[in-house]
Amino acid sequence: MVLGIGDDCALLTPPPGQQLAVTIDTLVADVHFFADVDPEALGHKALAVNLSDLAAMGATPAWATLALTLPKADEDWLARFCRGLFALADRCQVQLIGGDTTHGPTTVITIQAHGFVPPGQALRRDGAQPGDGIYLTGTPGDAGLALAAAYGKVDLDPAWRAAVQTRLERPQPRIAQGVALRGIASAAIDISDGLAQDLGHILERSRVGARVELAQLPLSPALAASLDADAAIETALTGGDDYELCFTVPPACAAQLEAVAVDWDCRCTRIGVITAESGLQLRRADGSALRLTRQGYDHFA
Amino acid sequence: MVLGIGDDCALLTPPPGQQLAVTIDTLVADVHFFADVDPEALGHKALAVNLSDLAAMGATPAWATLALTLPKADEDWLARFCRGLFALADRCQVQLIGGDTTHGPTTVITIQAHGFVPPGQALRRDGAQPGDGIYLTGTPGDAGLALAAAYGKVDLDPAWRAAVQTRLERPQPRIAQGVALRGIASAAIDISDGLAQDLGHILERSRVGARVELAQLPLSPALAASLDADAAIETALTGGDDYELCFTVPPACAAQLEAVAVDWDCRCTRIGVITAESGLQLRRADGSALRLTRQGYDHFA
Repeated sequence: MVLGIGDDCALLTPPPGQQLAVTIDTLVADVHFFADVDPEALGHKALAVNLSDLAAMGATPAWATLALTLPKADEDWLARFCRGLFALADRCQVQLIGGDTTHGPTTVITIQAHGFVPPGQALRRDGAQPGDGIYLTGTPGDAGLALAAAYGKVDLDPAWRAAVQTRLERPQPRIAQGVALRGIASAAIDISDGLAQDLGHILERSRVGARVELAQLPLSPALAASLDADAAIETALTGGDDYELCFTVPPACAAQLEAVAVDWDCRCTRIGVITAESGLQLRRADGSALRLTRQGYDHFA
Repeated sequence: MVLGIGDDCALLTPPPGQQLAVTIDTLVADVHFFADVDPEALGHKALAVNLSDLAAMGATPAWATLALTLPKADEDWLARFCRGLFALADRCQVQLIGGDTTHGPTTVITIQAHGFVPPGQALRRDGAQPGDGIYLTGTPGDAGLALAAAYGKVDLDPAWRAAVQTRLERPQPRIAQGVALRGIASAAIDISDGLAQDLGHILERSRVGARVELAQLPLSPALAASLDADAAIETALTGGDDYELCFTVPPACAAQLEAVAVDWDCRCTRIGVITAESGLQLRRADGSALRLTRQGYDHFA
């Protein structure tokens, strides 16, 4: 960074020979988060959802800007929000290079994140080929379960409740995994809108189909223990807000994936295969097909 | 642009050897604009205020991202908003590379703009030196006059009203002027918060003072005709929302400035001089000092 906050613009020197990956995401109070959420968790999450988009491109995070609209100047709230945001920024070596704070009737947080990736190595959505394996980091559905509990739709054991609440409020962007997948994954996306819907985006952009083996879906202990089997699977497929990576790997790179994934701090699970035939088949252990009643995250609207 | 809207991130190739200038600005309904404003004008202005920040750095605009929070999905409104935004984007050769549209109770528009500037040539706020001339593009105070009329504080002749309304709603970012000032201006800022306040930012960052000759302030015919002399001067100094450039030029570069400014589509006026003594002196034609009752734009709160 040549020049940071305090002039008309920030001035930056992009590393020579790298491509710039840019993403922007907005969180609105009472739409994307509860207005009374812990501001430190909110600061973490507002940045995390953007870093997750960089991770899904295989980009190394570098810079972020923050546009914050607030109903009142609450110094304590702002200090805690910043504490959460900067803790994650520091851990991920992201510099906050600029911002704009405005007054408005509702809290609205827009963050834009910038990262770098060598030319030709970005993980796009359009590179999946028939025969590629479909993989997932972590365990999908945990954030969806936490939301269902928050809305009183499920009654959770307190220990499970705490575990999935952390997954909802403190998503860990899979940055190291995204970088490690350069040259290995043929396509990638983060499953912020739910596994079924986001895998659908890969299928659409790559003009392929997929068969997912539901018995292979990596369910967290909390999810497996709290819902019956069908509901757990449906939550894992449609829950959203998970910020795990779904990616495809050609058979020739499967061994290379196994070799890098042993160092990861999260699970890496093969859940299915890309098919030439279009459409998303969801196959139960007995070979029967599951039909989803909804495709993705709707905040239980 | 390698990859635009439709993946987790946009992928961009920064031109080799250039610095990246980045700015982010938010407009909130009923705070920064009237909720019933012409959406086409709003689309123009939302981008213009960001391009004005790039202009104030001497950067050439390249890319923009848009985060739009809307209370309802109004296709006609959105089409008109986009028409205004893209007309300016096309004219300034800016590509919209990404966005996020969300639902919320109030319209909130955040745009981030990216531009390029050769290393060491950015127009910063901290380079003004005693003896440098202080200059201004265009005529300050017109947007402030339009707002005063909108709030019923002044009664304007309809022709003047239309002229200043255009200045308020359709500010023209001084991109060509900013680029032309590379290597000429020692400091620059856009006067979005009012001339006195924004010149104050240059003085503070450059650790200098200034003497402004009020008789030299370039008043538009509308402003000069609509207010008495003192009120016109005060509006020009504090009105805000003008998006003109205020910049300083060393005496050795004054001739070079005159040579480039003849090609500009706006006035370029010398209004004062940077002083070693700190503080902003506002001098009337008779030599007496003006003291401002307010420093900058307060939306007539």
